[in-house]
Amino acid sequence: MVEMRQENKKNQERCFVDTIIVGAGFAGLKAAETLKEKGQKILLLEAQDRVGGRCKAGKIAGNVVDFGGQWIGAHHPLFREEAAKAGIELYPQYEEGKSLLSFKGKVKKFGLIPPFNPFALCEIALFIYLWGRDLKQIPKNQPWKAKKAEKWDSISFESWVMSHLRTKGAREFARAVVNGLFCVEASEMSYLYFLECMRQGRGMKVMMAASGGAQQDKARGGAWSVAKAMADRLGNKIRFQQPVVKIMQDESGIQVTTKAGEIYGAKKLILAIPPVLAAKLIFEPKLPSQKQGLLRRMPMGNVIKVHVAYERPFWREKGLSGEAIGLGLHFATVYDQTPKDEEIGILVGVIEGKYAVKMSQMSQEERRQIVVKDLVHYFGEQAKNPIEYVDCDWAKEEWAEGGYAGCMATGVLSLYGEALGRKEGHIHFAGTETATEWTGYFEGALQSGLRAANEILGN
Amino acid sequence: MVEMRQENKKNQERCFVDTIIVGAGFAGLKAAETLKEKGQKILLLEAQDRVGGRCKAGKIAGNVVDFGGQWIGAHHPLFREEAAKAGIELYPQYEEGKSLLSFKGKVKKFGLIPPFNPFALCEIALFIYLWGRDLKQIPKNQPWKAKKAEKWDSISFESWVMSHLRTKGAREFARAVVNGLFCVEASEMSYLYFLECMRQGRGMKVMMAASGGAQQDKARGGAWSVAKAMADRLGNKIRFQQPVVKIMQDESGIQVTTKAGEIYGAKKLILAIPPVLAAKLIFEPKLPSQKQGLLRRMPMGNVIKVHVAYERPFWREKGLSGEAIGLGLHFATVYDQTPKDEEIGILVGVIEGKYAVKMSQMSQEERRQIVVKDLVHYFGEQAKNPIEYVDCDWAKEEWAEGGYAGCMATGVLSLYGEALGRKEGHIHFAGTETATEWTGYFEGALQSGLRAANEILGN
Repeated sequence: MVEMRQENKKNQERCFVDTIIVGAGFAGLKAAETLKEKGQKILLLEAQDRVGGRCKAGKIAGNVVDFGGQWIGAHHPLFREEAAKAGIELYPQYEEGKSLLSFKGKVKKFGLIPPFNPFALCEIALFIYLWGRDLKQIPKNQPWKAKKAEKWDSISFESWVMSHLRTKGAREFARAVVNGLFCVEASEMSYLYFLECMRQGRGMKVMMAASGGAQQDKARGGAWSVAKAMADRLGNKIRFQQPVVKIMQDESGIQVTTKAGEIYGAKKLILAIPPVLAAKLIFEPKLPSQKQGLLRRMPMGNVIKVHVAYERPFWREKGLSGEAIGLGLHFATVYDQTPKDEEIGILVGVIEGKYAVKMSQMSQEERRQIVVKDLVHYFGEQAKNPIEYVDCDWAKEEWAEGGYAGCMATGVLSLYGEALGRKEGHIHFAGTETATEWTGYFEGALQSGLRAANEILGN
Repeated sequence: MVEMRQENKKNQERCFVDTIIVGAGFAGLKAAETLKEKGQKILLLEAQDRVGGRCKAGKIAGNVVDFGGQWIGAHHPLFREEAAKAGIELYPQYEEGKSLLSFKGKVKKFGLIPPFNPFALCEIALFIYLWGRDLKQIPKNQPWKAKKAEKWDSISFESWVMSHLRTKGAREFARAVVNGLFCVEASEMSYLYFLECMRQGRGMKVMMAASGGAQQDKARGGAWSVAKAMADRLGNKIRFQQPVVKIMQDESGIQVTTKAGEIYGAKKLILAIPPVLAAKLIFEPKLPSQKQGLLRRMPMGNVIKVHVAYERPFWREKGLSGEAIGLGLHFATVYDQTPKDEEIGILVGVIEGKYAVKMSQMSQEERRQIVVKDLVHYFGEQAKNPIEYVDCDWAKEEWAEGGYAGCMATGVLSLYGEALGRKEGHIHFAGTETATEWTGYFEGALQSGLRAANEILGN
């Protein structure tokens, strides 16, 4: 290999720092802050003109909302710490009143227990038990070492459903769990990876719940304001619109080339971007086949985030929480997003998996019509005339290519998984996909950034 | 969208042609030739300094061999036509004598029927029957429309094996079929995609066989010489070392940017590169989510092609064909590659799937030791001292990233498959992955190139 750090190369470099961090999502921001606090000279390179990654501010009817990730769970201490540092208030997801479930074309209200027939309810209790039992067998940090890892990784979630459940209600509900949590279809996800994600999120009940669960709170002013506050503290350590295209390393360090041809040098690098984007970079020397193979086997799920504003939160008047689950509907996950003053009513939700793929090819107006039709189906005629509709198709975001996170189909975790968070020479890997707690969430991103920074600090 | 073809843009273009073809593998070469013959002004852009793609010339002990794809099947008319045009002789794969099977650590000779116990043989007959029955239900060109498409696509090949076969022999042999034909582990491939590949290759017996099957013949001087002959006929229509990084299109046509910043214009474009490489390009406007999702869900298998030369083909003297199958061995697929004059003996084979991932991280010397150990296991002590060892790790090839072809895990073909060969605006897609006959083979590449060219010609 060429000795890169020879003088003529050095002279090309815009600057030389201790650690370059690539990607200013929560993982990169946390890594940068951690290293900076320890006195490291750092540089955070971001492809876009904003921070936050899959966390992004948007607006509807004059209100700031989150076009990307939004909820802060009861068990998300790292995010809570960041919000507190920034002085940003967290407030609970509204969930007063009944929720709605649409199944086989009929909408039913429910409180704690979804309105299925007793056979389906038994099977729902069964799968919650079975998942809880199985995920206990997944060793933390090394899911590929579970005794049944190979077996579970050879089974898609859909295969598991078909061989363990008999009722249509339980099957559809189980699939809705995967659609809703990972924005993929049940056949796209390995049962082993599903279990690992469940383990990281403390089981299905916590992951699906608002109060006490992963959707407990939201940030006043949007989750993005927390990323913004972290970025402000880093100041000029962040350089925007610097998409990295190439990462070279040798014994002496790292050299990074941006799309515009600028070159930065460092001793170490933290790559805090989604696997699907890391797969596009040129590495010299090439990454090991296992890592390369992994990066090409973690495609993003598909998700379109939707906000719909009404003159007032009319569902609250009917004793409804605004939460709706639609089995077999395009707009299958809905929550209340009404601002504090209740001046207007807002519903937020996501179009997931195959419906997101399909609706991504439509115009926004066509999507609006489908969403409003589903909202009328849930909430009645009052939902017919929103005052505004906005959506954000994450597959179209150049620096995300989907959401919420990279997912693994059958065979990936057991064969390639050990490369996930493994450093390669001077390159350390962060990003929510590499987390060992709350992968796919802000919390996982923060944890991964902290872990990567600590690797470099030798902790 | 910006109107690209306005004058100031036009002036940047090095040249403007009817059709730009990207990638000079067999698909791109065939497309280029077809269009050129019809009087089109064409340009073929190739990233490397050679043609052939996953077909590549190599040398061992002074003999030219194929480091990439090699065999020409009995049912490969398009390739035969190209070989004939180039005046290149095809000659049969040597298969006189017995073959070897290693199972549970023991090596046994066999002729037609692999030496398993009667129970395993019954099950092998069973799976051949079942696959044959199932693949008949796959509609040509539209496998996602099979009646059981969703069901079969939710099952990994490994799941299918575990739920249909009981004997260790049949299970291992079935897995070896997938390892050998697709260079992936059984859990990495969906049963639907497996069936589609089997349908394209006329069923397992044809795909696994030499005489009468997919490994019937080889090209004298190497298969690569056929690609070379096609390239020679295209002459200066090919430009080498022009990796494409960006493809823009609007109503009026296409604009392509290379890594070095050169810009070429055309009315149409044929993208004849593997999905995993297409996934790295920038498209403006972005491709539809379904196509984008597909390109990110067809990772290459893993394969290291190995040649080992001996002073003479000693196995022939023992009445062995040189063919060996090793269930559970690193070097699991071996054939005779001895030159016509028998001056020396050569064995050729491949390291596939998980073993290729693992051995990719070793030095060539470490790989040599493992391969020779396996060859001694098959052929005895005479295999201990080869006169030369060479290998080619396709995962390390920048413009392939693995082999033989892009594969689909569960959920991909049914959800994203219809985007596979679909044109997007002025961009047409070729490459063996988009074939409807012999995907993964040279023949499929040629067929896809012909199909893409005919789309443009309006045939």
